[in-house]
Amino acid sequence: MSATLVVQRIRSHELPAHAGERVHLRGWLHAVRRLGGITFVILRDGWGTVQAVAEAPGQLDPIVNGELLPESVIQLTGTVVVAPQAPGGHELHNPELDIITPVTETLPVILGKKEVNASLTTQLDHAVFVNRHPTRRAVFRLAAVTMAAFREALASQGFTEIQTPKLVASATESGANVFSVDYFGQRAYLAQSPQFYKQIMVGVFERVFEVGPVFRAEPHDTTRHTNEYVSLDMEMGFINDHFDVMAMLRTVLAHIFATLQAQCAPELALAGAVLPEVPPTIPHIHFAEAQDLILQRHGVDVRGEPDLSPQDERWLGEWARAEHGSDFLFVTGYPMAKRPFYTHPDPERPGYSNSFDLLFRGTELVTGGQRLHRYGDYQAALAARDLPEAPFATYLETFRYGMPPHGGFAVGLERLLMQLTGAPNLRLTTLFPRDLNRLAP
Amino acid sequence: MSATLVVQRIRSHELPAHAGERVHLRGWLHAVRRLGGITFVILRDGWGTVQAVAEAPGQLDPIVNGELLPESVIQLTGTVVVAPQAPGGHELHNPELDIITPVTETLPVILGKKEVNASLTTQLDHAVFVNRHPTRRAVFRLAAVTMAAFREALASQGFTEIQTPKLVASATESGANVFSVDYFGQRAYLAQSPQFYKQIMVGVFERVFEVGPVFRAEPHDTTRHTNEYVSLDMEMGFINDHFDVMAMLRTVLAHIFATLQAQCAPELALAGAVLPEVPPTIPHIHFAEAQDLILQRHGVDVRGEPDLSPQDERWLGEWARAEHGSDFLFVTGYPMAKRPFYTHPDPERPGYSNSFDLLFRGTELVTGGQRLHRYGDYQAALAARDLPEAPFATYLETFRYGMPPHGGFAVGLERLLMQLTGAPNLRLTTLFPRDLNRLAP
Repeated sequence: MSATLVVQRIRSHELPAHAGERVHLRGWLHAVRRLGGITFVILRDGWGTVQAVAEAPGQLDPIVNGELLPESVIQLTGTVVVAPQAPGGHELHNPELDIITPVTETLPVILGKKEVNASLTTQLDHAVFVNRHPTRRAVFRLAAVTMAAFREALASQGFTEIQTPKLVASATESGANVFSVDYFGQRAYLAQSPQFYKQIMVGVFERVFEVGPVFRAEPHDTTRHTNEYVSLDMEMGFINDHFDVMAMLRTVLAHIFATLQAQCAPELALAGAVLPEVPPTIPHIHFAEAQDLILQRHGVDVRGEPDLSPQDERWLGEWARAEHGSDFLFVTGYPMAKRPFYTHPDPERPGYSNSFDLLFRGTELVTGGQRLHRYGDYQAALAARDLPEAPFATYLETFRYGMPPHGGFAVGLERLLMQLTGAPNLRLTTLFPRDLNRLAP
Repeated sequence: MSATLVVQRIRSHELPAHAGERVHLRGWLHAVRRLGGITFVILRDGWGTVQAVAEAPGQLDPIVNGELLPESVIQLTGTVVVAPQAPGGHELHNPELDIITPVTETLPVILGKKEVNASLTTQLDHAVFVNRHPTRRAVFRLAAVTMAAFREALASQGFTEIQTPKLVASATESGANVFSVDYFGQRAYLAQSPQFYKQIMVGVFERVFEVGPVFRAEPHDTTRHTNEYVSLDMEMGFINDHFDVMAMLRTVLAHIFATLQAQCAPELALAGAVLPEVPPTIPHIHFAEAQDLILQRHGVDVRGEPDLSPQDERWLGEWARAEHGSDFLFVTGYPMAKRPFYTHPDPERPGYSNSFDLLFRGTELVTGGQRLHRYGDYQAALAARDLPEAPFATYLETFRYGMPPHGGFAVGLERLLMQLTGAPNLRLTTLFPRDLNRLAP
């Protein structure tokens, strides 16, 4: 401990503003590198990393001699020096050490290297500290800024935030793949999406959004699915058709990417993310034309298929880039057969719907569309699918008492980050993923 | 439909900016009032209400003659006229009607009166449209602005937003009152709070917050509890003790109330909310002194009790108002016996903790405190409570690999709104409440 005049604790990203001053930094002992007689000590705090240089004998002894292990919580006091060769352009000289919480065991995964060098399973098993690695946490900072920008874009368009229940009475929305809950002896279910509630809330606020967890009991083990994820949902009233929803989605995405660019340059670099440009109008193609296009360009006849395959989506993504110079492509008018019962049909093309998917770099990122809004249409849609009305009673009450034409969309937060960062597995963009075989940490 | 020059659709709150213009308004037929030969038609949109005046024969006929029922979705086109006697000071003259979605059945609950005149059960049964009532939705707009202000206050202090899993492997935090989920044949649980995860994430970002649902399987039926609610959680590292957390809580609350005041004057009035002043420093009293004070002032000896009763809290609230002119009072140092195992003890006063409750108008609003941060302390705390380490393995791993002194707090969103609006039941500040007997709508 020293009697030096110490001004304040600063954060790692504030170093440049304090050149020449003696400051405190607090954080974790991230890495130690030795070069000749010099030891470089990297401290990591909640915002970044700082390099401290121990040149004189005795400086930072417990670190230099290896007694203090990585991830120990420490305070470094030092003088901020401009050092063009240092990461970030500044470093700490004449450092002094205060130990806050020493670590005495070697970590199962080394965090002090540029990349996390461990299998996916090991990384996920030890996520409680592997998420501390700069490249991992960069992804989660991008997630935080994405959520904030999503809300900001919609709030500025008159949308109101809602938080709807996750415990629901019936497994109604898709009828399958829901988790069931023992609710005081009754059976309850975990909501697969806020779909019904966000529509109901259009009756209250006209424009609503929600950011929250959704639960899918899909028994698949793929790189692109988990069983709990964060859904960015919106729903808006008084639309003409799904094109109004698509225009709002474009506004939202443009704001998200502009915000990431403005606020997250270091995190984007660490996470290896390449931001797309959002064109002033995102190109769109009708489902049927998309199938024709695939036949023309690739000689594969997928006409008559009720959905697009991943290969179809990749081909369409390539076409959007080649033809429109766009990372984004709306595919509209998916066949009614593959869309949920509340989907609004295309009044002009029976069998097709007023719905859309947004492809981003050749993969589906967003699903949305116009919903039915007349009570009689809901009754007919349920009857056409041989579904009883009773489990939908409270949902139907909304439409019985006046609803405008409306529609909305949902973006999977982790899916967006996966596509943005090129992560090979959705689990790498999820803080603590839940899948068929994983409920912890 | 008319050939009039129509500029645009405006929202109800934009009327004053369009005096003299002919405009569209779209929304719901909220109420109809007749006075002499004049019919006043109230249209409600997502932001407020507007009065239209039908004076000439034939104007708004389907409404005037009662064919079109309340909650029908309509468009009114009219001329904006300054009318000091009208609610809001402007009204629509020479209105024309377009019917968007007619309602043909009478509502089970009338929404067009100043108050919702129905039993609590009826209101909750029909929440899908009762939430449209101006006094009800005002509460939920306050909720939206509160969440936004909470996030904004913390983001400006360097906090990062997180979304942690709600499906967890073990019922570890309190050991009881958790909902169990059938997770692919395994047993999972619904998180009672993000407590463990927000602490873990202090290791990643140092300062984190989360806004999301929490689930409590408490089999009580009270006016102040529901089984799913929205928790505003934060956690911060590198604190000296719980007083640093209390100071941050004060900053957050001041920002929330200032934002509500600036943005929500109409909603506060409709919801009957009276905003408190947040003193520059919220007064605080130690738990033991609080018990002494109750003995002195009220002659009731509660010394030795491990917790405060609701009556104790009311007395302390009265004292804070009388002595400090404050709606808020921190009670610090609750006995360790009544606090969870991760609570940090008071180093100076064995048996008491570095924790606090914030009383707001004599009722507990926030709970928080400093947590243990050393691995050995966790092992000792679990052993002292005869709890095994195994179910806590991943949580403990965090502390094994370096954690700073830290603490945080949690605010129940609906509880805050209940106390702010003086609502007699927490269910009235919850969009779609879940309780022992209610899972729908």
